[in-house]
Amino acid sequence: MQFTVQQIANALGAEAEGNTDLTILRAAEPGDAGRTDLAMAMSPKYAEALGSGSARVAMLWPGADWRTMGLEAAIFAPRPRMAMAGVTRLLDRGQGVQPGIHPSAVIDPTAEIGADVSIGPLAVIGARARIGKGSMIGSHCVVGMDASLGEGALLREMVSIGARALIGDRFIAQPGARIGGDGFSFVTPEVSGVENVRKTMGDQGEAKAQSWLRIHSLGAVEIGDDVEVGSNSTIDNGTIRNTRIGDGTKLDNLVHVGHNTRVGNDCLLCGQTGISGSVDIGNNVVLGGQTGVVDNIFIGDRVISGGGTKILSNVPAGRVIMGYPGVKMETHTEIYKAQRRLPRLARDVEALKKAVSNQAPSE
Amino acid sequence: MQFTVQQIANALGAEAEGNTDLTILRAAEPGDAGRTDLAMAMSPKYAEALGSGSARVAMLWPGADWRTMGLEAAIFAPRPRMAMAGVTRLLDRGQGVQPGIHPSAVIDPTAEIGADVSIGPLAVIGARARIGKGSMIGSHCVVGMDASLGEGALLREMVSIGARALIGDRFIAQPGARIGGDGFSFVTPEVSGVENVRKTMGDQGEAKAQSWLRIHSLGAVEIGDDVEVGSNSTIDNGTIRNTRIGDGTKLDNLVHVGHNTRVGNDCLLCGQTGISGSVDIGNNVVLGGQTGVVDNIFIGDRVISGGGTKILSNVPAGRVIMGYPGVKMETHTEIYKAQRRLPRLARDVEALKKAVSNQAPSE
Amino acid sequence: MQFTVQQIANALGAEAEGNTDLTILRAAEPGDAGRTDLAMAMSPKYAEALGSGSARVAMLWPGADWRTMGLEAAIFAPRPRMAMAGVTRLLDRGQGVQPGIHPSAVIDPTAEIGADVSIGPLAVIGARARIGKGSMIGSHCVVGMDASLGEGALLREMVSIGARALIGDRFIAQPGARIGGDGFSFVTPEVSGVENVRKTMGDQGEAKAQSWLRIHSLGAVEIGDDVEVGSNSTIDNGTIRNTRIGDGTKLDNLVHVGHNTRVGNDCLLCGQTGISGSVDIGNNVVLGGQTGVVDNIFIGDRVISGGGTKILSNVPAGRVIMGYPGVKMETHTEIYKAQRRLPRLARDVEALKKAVSNQAPSE
Repeated sequence: MQFTVQQIANALGAEAEGNTDLTILRAAEPGDAGRTDLAMAMSPKYAEALGSGSARVAMLWPGADWRTMGLEAAIFAPRPRMAMAGVTRLLDRGQGVQPGIHPSAVIDPTAEIGADVSIGPLAVIGARARIGKGSMIGSHCVVGMDASLGEGALLREMVSIGARALIGDRFIAQPGARIGGDGFSFVTPEVSGVENVRKTMGDQGEAKAQSWLRIHSLGAVEIGDDVEVGSNSTIDNGTIRNTRIGDGTKLDNLVHVGHNTRVGNDCLLCGQTGISGSVDIGNNVVLGGQTGVVDNIFIGDRVISGGGTKILSNVPAGRVIMGYPGVKMETHTEIYKAQRRLPRLARDVEALKKAVSNQAPSE
Repeated sequence: MQFTVQQIANALGAEAEGNTDLTILRAAEPGDAGRTDLAMAMSPKYAEALGSGSARVAMLWPGADWRTMGLEAAIFAPRPRMAMAGVTRLLDRGQGVQPGIHPSAVIDPTAEIGADVSIGPLAVIGARARIGKGSMIGSHCVVGMDASLGEGALLREMVSIGARALIGDRFIAQPGARIGGDGFSFVTPEVSGVENVRKTMGDQGEAKAQSWLRIHSLGAVEIGDDVEVGSNSTIDNGTIRNTRIGDGTKLDNLVHVGHNTRVGNDCLLCGQTGISGSVDIGNNVVLGGQTGVVDNIFIGDRVISGGGTKILSNVPAGRVIMGYPGVKMETHTEIYKAQRRLPRLARDVEALKKAVSNQAPSE
Repeated sequence: MQFTVQQIANALGAEAEGNTDLTILRAAEPGDAGRTDLAMAMSPKYAEALGSGSARVAMLWPGADWRTMGLEAAIFAPRPRMAMAGVTRLLDRGQGVQPGIHPSAVIDPTAEIGADVSIGPLAVIGARARIGKGSMIGSHCVVGMDASLGEGALLREMVSIGARALIGDRFIAQPGARIGGDGFSFVTPEVSGVENVRKTMGDQGEAKAQSWLRIHSLGAVEIGDDVEVGSNSTIDNGTIRNTRIGDGTKLDNLVHVGHNTRVGNDCLLCGQTGISGSVDIGNNVVLGGQTGVVDNIFIGDRVISGGGTKILSNVPAGRVIMGYPGVKMETHTEIYKAQRRLPRLARDVEALKKAVSNQAPSE
């Protein structure tokens, strides 16, 4: 895999200057870059390290004076992370999936495998499952009975997709992602302490200790186009309807999405975020790492939560929230500052009490 | 899989009215229900959507006037979620596990496989492992050496069970569940900063930087009857004694149970809950999503924690707690309300200070 | 596997007394110990239970009067957990990995397998991968293309190691550990609401809703010697440079380490800890369970965080922190105490307001 500087610039729709015929094999950090690397130095801060590497070509900010940096050529990136997207896409060497179907894979004769599909060693494809053309299925993956995977999927190793899952095009799943485990849904024969606590906000009442009966998941998981699911993340089947993930939504590692929940389009769910069952999440929502969301609420479009936020009630569209419980970010900052001053405040109140008591008319 | 309305009602021990000979193939939400579906409309709110679907039969609340809803038959559910348990159990189409032992499975000749056991493709069963009758072992599962699994187990794909695990009857494990990884237990040759911090509540003292020595796990995991473990959850081996999960306890996805910990009967550990090592948890405890529990404490029977609670000390039986650190839910609510008023309180105190200083006798 | 009391004492460098020729097969808790068990009773509290077991030999604290406890021999442990490390190492019966390469494993002909390597059933070893001598690779493991694993590795079942990972000697990975998933890195064509929120601490500004473009991971994961990774934990590939884990660092279960992050030597990352991308963590850092760390910060050497801490900004070396956001542990305790008194404080201020208003000069 190699490109000229000009080919990379063209792929990015970017300007290049200097000897644009130079060949690039890799991208590298400025200080580590060798003579066939493209040094990623999109701000003056990063460009400082160019001197300690031996790059001849760098990706720089518009207007950067590349000649004084000892370079022979440069590509200019007006929006650094966009350039990153383009360059890394071009130079990705992948995982070495072999074309064709590995003889050790176990494929049900009724499965429909599209054209140009790669299936790695020891994968299992169930009855009537459909794999869209151009998909790459990693080793040890399981695609369940009646599941459907769109075109151009990329499943890394040990991904599991449960029966009846419906997944759109260009799906990416990192190692160990679990689509379509059963939902966590149980009931006691009589009213339980948890049910009472939800009503009373804290009182279990007279509920007696009971065992849990299982509510099975008859629904499946439905996923739009251009969705990515991180390593060891889990999306559970719905109870009656399907759990749904909208187009363009991305889940980081170890994220949990409960049964019946609907996540809109173009959302980001960052690492270890957990969403309970029957939550309704709008479009373009970004939940920071370790966000938690209780069941049966809605989160409007464009909501953003800071890392660690616990969302315990509905959130209107466009709101930026933080904290436990999650409140508007400004409110959180205000509360937090007041908290830090709290010990002093307590001392002030003690002093005031004394002062006022001293001043009290001596009746 | 199909049932008459009457058969479903009988299975639930429920009353049915109307044309109870109608055939049902699926359960559906009222608005999506077709002519052979059972619409789940156990409250007037859900029944409203019946008009936009084409259900002929619905599950309704007792006394509901089904004829005016355009239905031909109805089943009545005094406790909606209990009816859900019954209906979903009946109509669950499962994952399509094939009967018998798949030829690609790798089964040690000394393993004891009970009657009517299904073992999926590419599963591995270790030396002297025992699988109880009627169990279904999904593809790519591993049952370790000397492990024992009771009757009627259902392991989804890629479940791993470590050596010497002892598991009761009717065990359910979702994809990627890990039973019997080694405990996380390390020690430094001399006293460490962490040990000092625990004693002093914040001071590392003079502890020097050291490397960690591993404490191996000689114990295993011991699980009662009717336990379910969610996708990608982990239960670690004990150090000397076994880690234990009691009868009827259910773990959601991505839950962590540390070494030596004992969880009682009929508990629910919701999504991403994490329990450290050597914790003692009673019966009928419900820990909300993302609850955390520090090591070496006990949690009494019937304790309930709200989502995101961090439990840092012992909790007496029956208590309902919330927050970080977890306190009684009422206390948490009271503290939280006071916090929201805190900025105003600070302003009040400032005003008071001014007022008192103005009133001070001008000596 | 059996040892005499003397052999165990020698292995630990410890003193033994009594009939040190007795044979030991297992370690046990004092109350459960049988006649061929070593009872672990390193404090008087634990020794009390010796009477209800039938141990003939115990591990005791220095100076303990073993004869009065009905024992025939004793080993003395000045530092109990160090003795645990030694005893459990000696008596670990392991997972029963068979020597040699299982015929069902799928091994690329270009892979380099060292001497005395065990490879379990259905493992997959990619092109040009190197496995150091004496390593044990569990069933269903995947070692990716061009990955390198040092000597004496122990991979439990279903561990995945991505392409180009570089791993040192004596690596241990628990079931389902994921090394080298792709980083979670996305960008919108124009400035996003999240970018604005980061600058303004809470205001999304005029950013419009957009879809996310993927930044691929060209880097890999680089791991030092003596590292252990827990069940279902995930370490992501770097974007340009490698994500790095230093020598002697241990990760518990369900831990997440984001792309580009560097973790130093001899750190402990406890259960469900999540570290975002591009974080720089020093040596001998201990992060308690469910700690969260935002991206692009540094955490100095010997920092310790309590369970549940959310680290939102740089932390200087040696600091002990707790809370959300994480602050010095003493500060956290002080704030927390003040919070608990907050409702009372509010009532005091109300009373003061009344008192001051009554005392106000009646102008």
